[in-house]
Order: sequence, then structure tokens, then C-alpha cells
Amino acid sequence: MVIVGIVAGGTGSRMGADRPKQMLDLCGKPVLIRTAQAFLRHSQVGHIIIGIHPDWYDEVKALTEKELDSRVSVTPGGSDRNDTVMNIINYAKSIDGVSDDTIILTHDAVRPFVTDRMIDDSIAAMDNYAICTAAVPATDTIVVSENGQTVCDFPLRSTMYQVQTPQTFRIGDFVGVYSGLTEKEKSEITDVCKLFYRKGHEVGLIMGDQKNIKLTYPADLTAARTFFEEQEENQ
Amino acid sequence: MVIVGIVAGGTGSRMGADRPKQMLDLCGKPVLIRTAQAFLRHSQVGHIIIGIHPDWYDEVKALTEKELDSRVSVTPGGSDRNDTVMNIINYAKSIDGVSDDTIILTHDAVRPFVTDRMIDDSIAAMDNYAICTAAVPATDTIVVSENGQTVCDFPLRSTMYQVQTPQTFRIGDFVGVYSGLTEKEKSEITDVCKLFYRKGHEVGLIMGDQKNIKLTYPADLTAARTFFEEQEENQ
Repeated sequence: MVIVGIVAGGTGSRMGADRPKQMLDLCGKPVLIRTAQAFLRHSQVGHIIIGIHPDWYDEVKALTEKELDSRVSVTPGGSDRNDTVMNIINYAKSIDGVSDDTIILTHDAVRPFVTDRMIDDSIAAMDNYAICTAAVPATDTIVVSENGQTVCDFPLRSTMYQVQTPQTFRIGDFVGVYSGLTEKEKSEITDVCKLFYRKGHEVGLIMGDQKNIKLTYPADLTAARTFFEEQEENQ
Repeated sequence: MVIVGIVAGGTGSRMGADRPKQMLDLCGKPVLIRTAQAFLRHSQVGHIIIGIHPDWYDEVKALTEKELDSRVSVTPGGSDRNDTVMNIINYAKSIDGVSDDTIILTHDAVRPFVTDRMIDDSIAAMDNYAICTAAVPATDTIVVSENGQTVCDFPLRSTMYQVQTPQTFRIGDFVGVYSGLTEKEKSEITDVCKLFYRKGHEVGLIMGDQKNIKLTYPADLTAARTFFEEQEENQ
């Protein structure tokens, strides 16, 4: 059994909507529900814990009870992403069968197109790494600019990857890495992969997918509807 | 007067279509025509030259004659992107009023959402730089992997930019930079900004736009239709 932590702290400002992005409709259900359903389809997922902004706790709790099943719980999010993951892990520890060795896949609530293959690969990577992340080769050329005015470096495109989620690790390892940080480090290093890396862990890559998009801008929802309809046709 | 070189060498394989991406329909006209129209709306654009794969030359020539006006010409593309730009420049030299100092904006045929503001900024940047490119801050976290298996660096996200087009320079400067290259260098350095950089030129950045997408995957066309309809409503 693995568990899944869905991180749903966004406020949706870039969508121009008055609801967080994960609450927007995707073909009849909120995005968050679609994301949870994608994990529930996988046989090894024993429990999903959604870390949600406290303002949305009641609504999301009612929604998951209506739309999903008893494998799904909701817990209030923390002050930032990693703090929300810590809350999710604290909740997870109360579940029967969860130990420090339990694998948790952490995932953006607004990436509803995670696949069984990505989940399989993430779990398998735990044989070799303390942490792994989904990523895809960068589609655009990437340049570096320190002043925002001129280019100071042209990194080799074939070595550049865009990070997606899931990001996967064992519960005990996260607690070990995170609890040793100062408040300053916590505020500076928001990327969990970088946290593990700084503590000397290799960070494994598993192949994401161009369709595993993060719904950020209104146009992303349009693309998401197309992806969703294709997916339904193929099932 | 500035001129525009539209680079249209793609074969569309990633779109899963049997026509190059720039020939696919965007709300009633091929993408390439939409891109050219975006430049023709700008008062400083005197001429557009489309560099097209030789197999599509006749069809595109007929299409531009039907849909566009006498400011638009078509020339066969070369063996790679820079070679196509060279062909475009050789064609441009036959136009009245074009000299080594003439500014050329080079642009992907499959980016139909270039704006007047980007064109203005590109021309203005020529006061300070020999070359400039449109770019946007990277939306995803970028990591570096040399082996494709593990992460070897976490560059600072705030310094990472995704390159778009237009990429703008003076005709004479391009010829100077490009004609001095060996065949090996030509095949290795496909990025024109990197070419200029290697020759000691500063590369200026002008702000692109999240909507200035390169139509690469089928879902991009769906998003493009939404953008196009919004644009028409706002005009």
C-alpha cells in the first residue's frame, strides 16, 4: 500500500476566478475530484489525503464525502507546500498500516492527468532513490538571465527538464529532512527535491507526460477538457 | 521600415497530422496566415518573407497571394533554421530600401499570437543590442540532468527564461556572424542567440507572453482557438 498526498493550497488568482483552480469544473466534476479519481483507479493506492486551505476545508470535506469513498481524507494545509505535506504526513500516521517506511506520492491538485504508468514508475523508483519526481524534457529553449535584461548563459537544452508531480518519498525520510530545517531554510527551500538533494540524497527522475499539465491559466482548462474527453473515449 | 522573416520549416510530426503545423486550420485560415496577419497589422512592418519547405512552396505561394497582399513574399527554406534565415535575407536584399542596417524580426510560423507590443519592444531593443529575443520567465521548476536518470543541479528558478520568438537583429550582423562559421559549427549551434553570444554580442531579452505559444501538440490548437476567439472579441 502507498498513500497519496494531494496538495491543494492555491488561490486561483492566475485563473481570474473567484474559486481556487482545483475547485473549477472539469467536465462535470471539480478538478480536485478528477485528480483524486486518477489515483483511486490504481490498485496500490490505499489512501489519499488532501491538504486543503483552511477556508475551503468544510466544502472540500463535504465534496469528497459525496463524490469519493472512505479511502479519501481531508486535512487543513499549512503555511506553505512543505508544511502542508507535513500536515498530510501527520494525518497519515493515524492510518492503520502506515509506518515510516510507507511511500507517499505527493501531487498537485491541479494535475488531473497523472497516469497509472507514472504511479508505477514512482513506486518502482523507491527501490533506488529516497526521492523521485516526474519531469519532462524542456520543450522550449531555456536561457539564464540574472538581471532580466540580457542572457548570461545558454544551458544545454538536452539536459534541461521541467518538473511535474508526483514527487515520491518515504514518510520517515521527509520528516527527517524537514524537521531538521531552520525557519529560514524552510522559507528559502520550497522545492522538496532540492531539500532532499541538499541533505545528500540522489533525486531520481521518472518520465512525466506533456499531458500531465498543471492547470494554471484559463486556456489550460480548455486543453484539459480536450484531454479529458480523449481519455474517456479511450477507456 | 523593418522586415519580418517567418520560418516555416516544420513537418508537423508531433501534431500527428499529415500537413505541417503551420498549414493547419485556426478558425478558418491556416496558422501561417494568422501569423503573417499579426505582423501586417503593425505600421512599421514593410515586408514579410516566408521561408517554407520546398515541398510546400507552390501551395504556400498560392495561398499568400490569395489571402495576403503584395508585402508578403515566399522563398524556399534551407537545410536548417539558420540556413532558412539566410535564404530569407538573400531574398530581402532584392527589396528596395533594404540594407545591411535593416532590422529583421525572425519568427516561428506556428506562433500566431505575436503582439504589436512585442514587435515595438523588439525594434526598440535594437538601439541597445545587436540581437534580442522574446522570452518569458519559466513557469515550471527547471532541473538539470545529464544522464536523464538523476538530477545534478537545481538552477535558481527566477533566473530561468523560456525562449520564444521574435528574435531580432540587423541583416548585416546576421550575415557577419553566420558566414564565418564552419559547417560543424553551423550544425552544432542551431540557436541564433547563442551564435551572436559566441561572437561577443550581448543578447537582449524582450518580454514575450504566455499566450505567444508555439503550436506543437494537438492540444495547443485547442488553446489557440480559445485565444483567437478572445482576441477577435477584444478588437
